[in-house]
Amino acid sequence: MLTDVELKSFNEDGYLLRPSVFTADEVDLLKSLSEEQFSRDAPSRVLEKDGHTVRGVHGSHLVDEAFSRLVRMPRVLAPAVQMLGGPVYVHQFKINAKKALRGDIWPWHQDYVFWNRRDGMTRAQAVNVAVFLDEATEVNGPLLFLPGSHRIGMLDLERHDGAEDGAEDWASNLAADLDYAINAPLLAKLTADRDIVPAKGPAGSVLLFDPLLVHGSGANMSPSDRRMILITYNRSDNILAPVANPRPEFLAGNDRAPLVALPETTSLS
Amino acid sequence: MLTDVELKSFNEDGYLLRPSVFTADEVDLLKSLSEEQFSRDAPSRVLEKDGHTVRGVHGSHLVDEAFSRLVRMPRVLAPAVQMLGGPVYVHQFKINAKKALRGDIWPWHQDYVFWNRRDGMTRAQAVNVAVFLDEATEVNGPLLFLPGSHRIGMLDLERHDGAEDGAEDWASNLAADLDYAINAPLLAKLTADRDIVPAKGPAGSVLLFDPLLVHGSGANMSPSDRRMILITYNRSDNILAPVANPRPEFLAGNDRAPLVALPETTSLS
Repeated sequence: MLTDVELKSFNEDGYLLRPSVFTADEVDLLKSLSEEQFSRDAPSRVLEKDGHTVRGVHGSHLVDEAFSRLVRMPRVLAPAVQMLGGPVYVHQFKINAKKALRGDIWPWHQDYVFWNRRDGMTRAQAVNVAVFLDEATEVNGPLLFLPGSHRIGMLDLERHDGAEDGAEDWASNLAADLDYAINAPLLAKLTADRDIVPAKGPAGSVLLFDPLLVHGSGANMSPSDRRMILITYNRSDNILAPVANPRPEFLAGNDRAPLVALPETTSLS
Repeated sequence: MLTDVELKSFNEDGYLLRPSVFTADEVDLLKSLSEEQFSRDAPSRVLEKDGHTVRGVHGSHLVDEAFSRLVRMPRVLAPAVQMLGGPVYVHQFKINAKKALRGDIWPWHQDYVFWNRRDGMTRAQAVNVAVFLDEATEVNGPLLFLPGSHRIGMLDLERHDGAEDGAEDWASNLAADLDYAINAPLLAKLTADRDIVPAKGPAGSVLLFDPLLVHGSGANMSPSDRRMILITYNRSDNILAPVANPRPEFLAGNDRAPLVALPETTSLS
């Protein structure tokens, strides 16, 4: 469970890092299972612009038993339930690869804009829980945050291509271009009274962040991959309104059944 | 002139940062002149992969009086002459734009590999003198160095495309792909006993670095451009051997006449 101090810090900044929550052995197992996912040619796998480097993979909790257990482990599930104040399910699960020297940027954005406009999510009662599979350093493309930016609410962004909401191919929003990316003039306004803060920490860390928190990440200039699992929990009663062109289940979960935490002693394998 | 401590530090690390050498007014003038250069459609101007964002411009000291004066100002010329132990001329002059949210990476490389293989430079008796036009921060794609890597000498790199030296189109080596980029396994070896260090500093700083120093830079994730002038001085007696397919003058200077420093009191305009 999160302490009052942690909750206050999350509410203030929009994120919270708990270092080394998973052991080195657990991280090794998660890395090896992630590599298995990266090696599988499937629609849920996304490539970098070069057309061959793996950028990430989605929905692995639907196809792999260990990842299915991971999302029910108290170390990631309990803080989400506590923070959202009610039962939750997995709206999205992805593993970002951020390959050594090949992993491209993620433009600045708010996750909730996509979930709201593409998936019909009605309220921002969701939370991201990230598990670091590698140390996040200054130079390997760590998540970059604008602390406190979640308190602004959902930014009123226009699509870059001028098309209607929901008209796009879903795959385009998993690459290094995003329909609802934040441009330089808006980012300049948002950084006028807050700094850009990199979320650095050791492998095994758990990082919670708000779906309205403005974030992005740079290129990986290090010789090692910077892998990260990102679980998005949504409150089971936070309804997704019908949308014209729903995304695949591996991008927008449709099993809203409240997750039940596994016993504390449960292992991944 | 550089102090003994500065020289020792340069020899040890392969670089040296002198903060705020140029005044805010001088930096403002250099920025405005740089923007003029960026706005001119010329072969010496290079674009990012997106085909419209300016990546940088070359040879501006050949076409603009203020940049021609800049390369003869004692604050940049004198340390180069002192360091190289003899008269020098400008082998290369560029202004990197590293545009806000658009400026792409520079892969890890040694400059000298290109000057040796493409331009026939016989010895590494050259030095880069950079002038920061904007503050270099953790998130706007600062130069990244491997301190001490210049002492390894020239790395024996194969061209990525397997072609013969000198066969390439020169333009390809000004973009975010480089023929002699250092790959992840080699970078892993090079970083086994040294850290990656970002060269951060205020606008107006002067940064000297060795042509054998392994360096690169990440993406600019900030809302402001991170512009930088890079002057490469070569010793006038460091001969360039004839090459089959010489690069344009704006990439490999052919006026080897020793530069004479302007008086200390000379201004840019």
